[in-house]
Amino acid sequence: MAVTTTSVAETCAAAKLAERALGNAPSEAKDRALDATARLLGERSEEILAANAEDLADERASVLSEALRDRLTLTQERIDAMADGVRAIVALDDPVGEELEHRTLASGIDLRKVQVPLGVIAVVYEARPNVTIDCAALTIKSGNAIILRGSSYAERSNGALAAVVREALAEAGLPEDAVLLLGGDRGDLAELATREDTIDLLIPRGGEALKEAIKEVATVPVMYAAAGNCHVYVHAEADPEMARRIVVNAKVQRPGVCNAAETLLVDAAIAPRFLPVVLADLDEHGVELFGDERARELAGGVEIGEAHEDDWDREYLELKMTVGVVDSLIDAVEHINAHGTGHSEAIVTSSEEAAEEFVADVDAAAVYVNASTRFTDGFEYGMGAEIGNSTQKLHARGPIGLRELTTFKYVARGDGQVRE
Amino acid sequence: MAVTTTSVAETCAAAKLAERALGNAPSEAKDRALDATARLLGERSEEILAANAEDLADERASVLSEALRDRLTLTQERIDAMADGVRAIVALDDPVGEELEHRTLASGIDLRKVQVPLGVIAVVYEARPNVTIDCAALTIKSGNAIILRGSSYAERSNGALAAVVREALAEAGLPEDAVLLLGGDRGDLAELATREDTIDLLIPRGGEALKEAIKEVATVPVMYAAAGNCHVYVHAEADPEMARRIVVNAKVQRPGVCNAAETLLVDAAIAPRFLPVVLADLDEHGVELFGDERARELAGGVEIGEAHEDDWDREYLELKMTVGVVDSLIDAVEHINAHGTGHSEAIVTSSEEAAEEFVADVDAAAVYVNASTRFTDGFEYGMGAEIGNSTQKLHARGPIGLRELTTFKYVARGDGQVRE
Repeated sequence: MAVTTTSVAETCAAAKLAERALGNAPSEAKDRALDATARLLGERSEEILAANAEDLADERASVLSEALRDRLTLTQERIDAMADGVRAIVALDDPVGEELEHRTLASGIDLRKVQVPLGVIAVVYEARPNVTIDCAALTIKSGNAIILRGSSYAERSNGALAAVVREALAEAGLPEDAVLLLGGDRGDLAELATREDTIDLLIPRGGEALKEAIKEVATVPVMYAAAGNCHVYVHAEADPEMARRIVVNAKVQRPGVCNAAETLLVDAAIAPRFLPVVLADLDEHGVELFGDERARELAGGVEIGEAHEDDWDREYLELKMTVGVVDSLIDAVEHINAHGTGHSEAIVTSSEEAAEEFVADVDAAAVYVNASTRFTDGFEYGMGAEIGNSTQKLHARGPIGLRELTTFKYVARGDGQVRE
Repeated sequence: MAVTTTSVAETCAAAKLAERALGNAPSEAKDRALDATARLLGERSEEILAANAEDLADERASVLSEALRDRLTLTQERIDAMADGVRAIVALDDPVGEELEHRTLASGIDLRKVQVPLGVIAVVYEARPNVTIDCAALTIKSGNAIILRGSSYAERSNGALAAVVREALAEAGLPEDAVLLLGGDRGDLAELATREDTIDLLIPRGGEALKEAIKEVATVPVMYAAAGNCHVYVHAEADPEMARRIVVNAKVQRPGVCNAAETLLVDAAIAPRFLPVVLADLDEHGVELFGDERARELAGGVEIGEAHEDDWDREYLELKMTVGVVDSLIDAVEHINAHGTGHSEAIVTSSEEAAEEFVADVDAAAVYVNASTRFTDGFEYGMGAEIGNSTQKLHARGPIGLRELTTFKYVARGDGQVRE
């Protein structure tokens, strides 16, 4: 299972060689490789689980927190879920080769704008072995070669999983080296992140520390999976019942993800009626609350701490929420644009005018009217699996799916045209 | 004419304030501002020319080369050309507000993907005052605020031109501060290039030294106008007459631009017949030639120097060309992918199969079959004015026009949906 190659240079060279063959491969071949991956995940479960058990038994793993150990742990059920994920990607449309535009120029040249793979994508991730399969499947379908740089804690698990994908590629007549696993121990991140001759896109999948480390050294293009300080703003003309349901859902349904709400803003006109009720709801769901002066005054019997200046910028990712009272829609928008991360922002209102204004003025990847922020997701948006969510404005904003892993080229055909 | 604000911080604050008003402005208002700009350029010609004369008479300008002085110089004709350029932008479609996708999600949420401005764009440029007008017009039309940082050599000219645009904005009821001119003397480039809270996109318009300076310090998103080491590959089955016409056009029609050809590759099968003829043609047009061993052997009577290793990577931007003989289409593709800059690459061939292979395998923004590389251009492509050409793969590839100066947001409308 000698999947881990020995150096960044060798890995990059192998990826460049594999890139073109995969980029020009027909959809059928790519789908065959994905089908084979799903099948082999089933057939090789025992080996994969054994490799994972070794990772977990390794002395190094003894330092991991309970949560991190859980992320590292594979079970038959989790392997089956990976295989299901791969099959779901088979069912998606292949974005490669799609004609985005087609016209005849004044010169008579036939010009087509055609979707093509990016080339070589690198993904740097932490100790979640499933990322190996999820990312490899997305890049195979979108015709990209991938360099996976996982965590050393998951070395054997990732090796077993990457071996499955490589075998599947070979079975489909595609180059094995379209999926390459780079060891995580070598402090070679800086080398990878500066290989502009090879890496067309680098995606870090992990916490803020990983992102910061990459920001410091990277010269290749990077797409950062988003941090989400998402807000729900309850407008003066909100339906209080709907607002309660949306606030609670946005905060508690799955607090550890980037589209969960972190801040609640309530219009002063509705706050005296609404706040005591929603805060009691949140409290009942175990949410720890921090409020500004007015929110604390209106909290009724609910325990609510004092919000400090930097609480407005926090992405808690747990059952905590900052609560503020604002005097107007404009104040809410100003607050959101100043403190938000441009991920997902919601207004609850019965006023069409207020909704229009909020939608026009809030600067974010996704803006919601009368719905929970939790919907920002590739599956929910009908785009299929995603590799993360982007809060950047260039190239991809929102869910990063198959299409976002492609670029385009202009193909111009003439019969001897020259420029006058 | 106090257009130049005093600091990067003040300029950024003013741009942020202007951004939203311009971003939500209707097309009519933006077009009114552009019409007024074109009109005022005519009415203020005398003032503009006087300011330009002062720039040219300044002691600082005495160090400029003849070519740079020419770029700095304004004439009535050049002012008229700027005004025509602005009117041409009025005629283009406003990309803002275009619905890119629209669907109803399983949850019943109505989801629209809508084109919106990027926000604040910064352009850093050298001593070409026309860039002030060209860029301001493109950003106004695309709903973006712009921070212009020109050269100190063109300080008064840029000031006069920016004043015209600001007056036009005010006349159209739009915020003047949507166009801000920053002095060029303050060594404040690093400050501007790291204002991630304000600058959504930075575009350097100038030579390699400017690009390198920005690459070193920038943390905001940057789109680099491309360098173009473009190739013409004459295939074994090329029509020699067509090939001559295309090679000569690509090299000599306007050698100083990025889509001009710098390297000629000729298939060994056609080289003995074709090379002496095309080299004589190029020689006649004053092109200085550098060749590999085989090209030099087949040069006939034409004088051709020895191509050194780094000549294959050169963007001459003048009447010089490197010439090589290759053994096959595959060799040509390998050479182009190794030495090209991903800008514009051409094959001349009568073989549909060869054309297909070239188009599929060459990794570039624009790939030509039987046409000159010189066509890569926003106007030629029917996109209207451009702010440059991109050889990046993310966001914009090829001409950077109005659409490439926008992003999108997802607007989701529900009636109380929450995530299960």
